[in-house]
Formats: sequence, structure tokens, C-alpha cells
Amino acid sequence: MINAAIVGYGNIGKAVHEAMLESKDIRLKYVVTSKNLSIGVPLLKDISELKDVDVAILCSPSRAVPGIAASLLAKGISTVDSYDIHTNIADVRLQLDAVAKEHRCAAIIAAGWDPGSDSVVRALMTAMLPKGITYTNFGPGMSMGHTVAVKAIPGIKDALSMTIPTGSGVHRRMVYVELEEGADFNTVSKAIREDDYFVHDETHVMQVESVDKLKDVGHGVHLFRKGVSGVTGNQRVEFNMSINNPALTGQILVSSARAVTKQKPGCYTMIQIPPIDFLYGDTDQLIRELV
Amino acid sequence: MINAAIVGYGNIGKAVHEAMLESKDIRLKYVVTSKNLSIGVPLLKDISELKDVDVAILCSPSRAVPGIAASLLAKGISTVDSYDIHTNIADVRLQLDAVAKEHRCAAIIAAGWDPGSDSVVRALMTAMLPKGITYTNFGPGMSMGHTVAVKAIPGIKDALSMTIPTGSGVHRRMVYVELEEGADFNTVSKAIREDDYFVHDETHVMQVESVDKLKDVGHGVHLFRKGVSGVTGNQRVEFNMSINNPALTGQILVSSARAVTKQKPGCYTMIQIPPIDFLYGDTDQLIRELV
Repeated sequence: MINAAIVGYGNIGKAVHEAMLESKDIRLKYVVTSKNLSIGVPLLKDISELKDVDVAILCSPSRAVPGIAASLLAKGISTVDSYDIHTNIADVRLQLDAVAKEHRCAAIIAAGWDPGSDSVVRALMTAMLPKGITYTNFGPGMSMGHTVAVKAIPGIKDALSMTIPTGSGVHRRMVYVELEEGADFNTVSKAIREDDYFVHDETHVMQVESVDKLKDVGHGVHLFRKGVSGVTGNQRVEFNMSINNPALTGQILVSSARAVTKQKPGCYTMIQIPPIDFLYGDTDQLIRELV
Repeated sequence: MINAAIVGYGNIGKAVHEAMLESKDIRLKYVVTSKNLSIGVPLLKDISELKDVDVAILCSPSRAVPGIAASLLAKGISTVDSYDIHTNIADVRLQLDAVAKEHRCAAIIAAGWDPGSDSVVRALMTAMLPKGITYTNFGPGMSMGHTVAVKAIPGIKDALSMTIPTGSGVHRRMVYVELEEGADFNTVSKAIREDDYFVHDETHVMQVESVDKLKDVGHGVHLFRKGVSGVTGNQRVEFNMSINNPALTGQILVSSARAVTKQKPGCYTMIQIPPIDFLYGDTDQLIRELV
């Protein structure tokens, strides 16, 4: 049995908990949260209290993840997270790789669906068609990372950021905000559009009475690569999905918690992990079923 | 540079050669074939003459592959192959795993598209949706195994068996035959429909003037899984491709030749290999591009 902790108990933390209850090889020992919850699991207020677990699944906002991961790895506790700031992943991995190696534990970062399972598909598509272009089209769906980033902006009471695919990997961001009393919409709107998460995309900010009435956690992706195998062009490969976002992210985190216990010390992204390591079961049986 | 040999020079061997010429890190040193070819590469008549290569890519018929792989691994030469007899893969892997470990080299077996890249997708889908059903729908495309089985039936001059997906992993077989003089179509048609390869599938046999005029190496697959992440059902994931079959198989074999040089001694299927290992380039750069 793998002894695990969940750090942070929002949407993702809850989905991780659900996925863990369905897994046969992972036992939840602690939840680290400042909330008062009755979930039948011992709660800890702070990661400094965490001990006696093999792996901690970090379900905190992305910007807090590198610091939390480094603290836990320094205590010899392996970590997995769904850190999703694409441009920083390679650097964060290098930083955590050094800490993990020094303290003889392992980490898998960016283990959600994008970055995450989509990254694995992109790597596989590139192995199949080394030359060509891959387009990643997200949505339509609520972006958790973008929504959290909006909510962190002063003056915002509640928010929802929708990702709308417009083709060729180009996206529109539709941001719905509920303002706090006295907040100025134009100031808030500008702050959102200048945030790192939004600055490169067509972004529309709209004020609404109730964000809650708009919420649906469905999401999707369409990955498409047209390219060349050897010298033969027009090879076409695509990957589609339509999913409940926190449920899939939670499941991939739990599958990654299983995988991280099988790795040598270091920090990895999902494309550096043998796919079989994410699965529960006997190697030969899995090969018989899946290969 | 990885020094490589190609063993067997049919459709697949030729496609491997093409893909190798496009790769920057793999150099073709020998082709092992009994054919007389002018392809600008030293030819060897037999695998017993093979030496000074890091990896041999086996492009012989599947039934010959386990024996050839065992011989080369016993000489310390790593191998990759696209062995495709699904029911035997797990056992062949165990046999070759022992040989590879004893002689400190590595093998990747079943490295084509199915088994192969499709297997990786099935494993990934299972990590995302541990409960559910995956359907693998092949085609439309030419089935080599079925075509060979038809050609073995008396009265048949040439044949082509097409695989047509009818959904839920069920397939129709469309068999085109050119008869020898004096052969009776009804007798031949009955023999095909009663053959082990066809008896379980909806099979249509048609007589044509020229099988050669129908041949096209295009193929495809539609993998579909509907299942449960955590406790949330109706999660839908699919993978589609439309490809030139030998070109893709050749490319995956070359990508696998690169990957095999990065593995510890042993024999692996593609689901046991980190996807990044199939790719050419610097780890951090690949993470920046793909994750």
C-alpha cells in the first residue's frame, strides 16, 4: 500500500480523494488544509506537520506548488502536482530535480491533462511523425488555472474563465466576473487582460450577477498532428476528449502518485515516465491486456 | 551516433531505411538480406555475420522474429521489432528479457502501431479512466495476416483482404480474389469464409480481374474509451489516425531503435518506455516543446 497525503482540498483535492477511494493500492493518511472538514481523514493545518507518507499530492494553486514541493521533497516526501504554467515547467523541474535527488525521493510535476496526458500524446505523435505541426485545441470549457488566476486579482468576488477553441491551436478566453462592492470593472478587466495567463490570447471580460449560475466543469481537447513518417507525408493523427475536468485531473494525479513511487530519485514530467507505471496491476497481465 | 543494422528488406525494411536517412542520430551500417540490392549500404547474407552495431531493427515476418532477436541479443546486440502476434507478446517478452539481461543489452518488441503506439494510447487512456471499455476499430485498410491466409487457399492466384470497421471493435472483412484458371469461385469463397482467420467475422468475398489494381498501403485506426475517472462516468477519450502503414511502422521502429539504446538491460514493450526516449533532442528542450 502507498501511504498518501492530499495538500489542499478544493475541487482538485476533493477529486483526488474520490479517485483514491476507488484505487486499491493507495491509502489516504492525511489531508493538509486550513479548512474545517468532516471527511473521515485526519487533517493537518500545515505541510510542516506532514510525516509518515510516501507521497503528497499537491492540489494547491499552481503558483504555490514549486515552494510546497521543494519543502516536502527536502523532507524526503515524494510529490506529484498538476502545475500548469507551461513556460516554467522545464525550469521548475530542474530545481525540484536537484532537491529530490539530494533527499532521495521523486516528484512528477505537471501531471494533469494539459500539461499531462496531452503532453504524452504530443510526444507519442512526434515519435510517429517526427516532422509536422501539432495543434492543441482546448475546450470549450472552464480553465481552472485561468479561473484561479482571475480570482487572485483584487476586486473580484467570483470568476469563471472559459476557453473557446478557434482552431489551429488558437483560443479565445471568455472571462465572467462578479465584482466586490466598490471595485472598478475597467481596472479589474485591464488587470486580467495583462495577467501572464491572458496576455497572449484574445480575452473578453464580462461582468455578471452570478458566476455560480454559469459553472460547468466539463472540458475537452482536440490534438491534431499532420506530418511525415520517414519520407511519407500526409500522416494524420488526432486525439479527442470530452471530460469532467476535476475528475480527470484528480484521477491522473492519483495514477501519478502510483507512478512516482516506482521512479528513481529525481523530478519528472509525464513524458519521462513509462506509461505502464501509472497503472495498477501486474506487469505481464497489463501487457496481455493493453499491448 | 547510434550504429544500426536492418534485418530483412521488404516493405518494412525499406521504410525503416527511409526513416533512418531522415534521422540525425542513427547511422545504417549493414542490411542483412539474401536479396541482391544496390542501396549504398554493405549487405550481409546472415545475422551470424553481424557485428559492430548498437542495435538491429528486425523487419522479418513476425513468426521468425523471436528466434532472430534471441540470437542477436545473445551476441550483445540490442534489437527492436514490430512482432504483432498479440496473444504471444507477453511470453516472448519474458523469454527475450532473460537473454537481454544475461548479455547486457536491451530489446523493444511489438514496436509498430498496433501493437505499438496504439498500446501506449490504450495504457494512457486506462491511467485516465481506470474503469471502462476501450474499443479498437481498425481500418479501412489492408490486413497482411488475412491476405496471407487467403493466398494459401488452393485456386487463388492473388488476393487482398481489407479490414472495414463496423464499430465497437467489430470488423467486416472484404476479400478480393483473382482465381487461377479452372478454379471454382463458390468453392474458394466457402473455403475463405470457413478459415480460422475469417470464421468469426462478417466476410464478403469478391472475384476481380486484377488484385494489383486495388492495392493501397493506407490504413487507419479509431480507438475509443468511455469510462470513469475517480467516481465520475461518461468520460470520453478517442484516438484516430489515417496513415501509410509501412511508413508509420518504419518510423516507429527507428524511434524505438533510438529508445532502446537508453534502456537498462531487458526486454520491453512500448508501454514500458518513457515516451521522451523515442525522441531525438535535448531533454529540457523537448520538455519545453511538448509538455
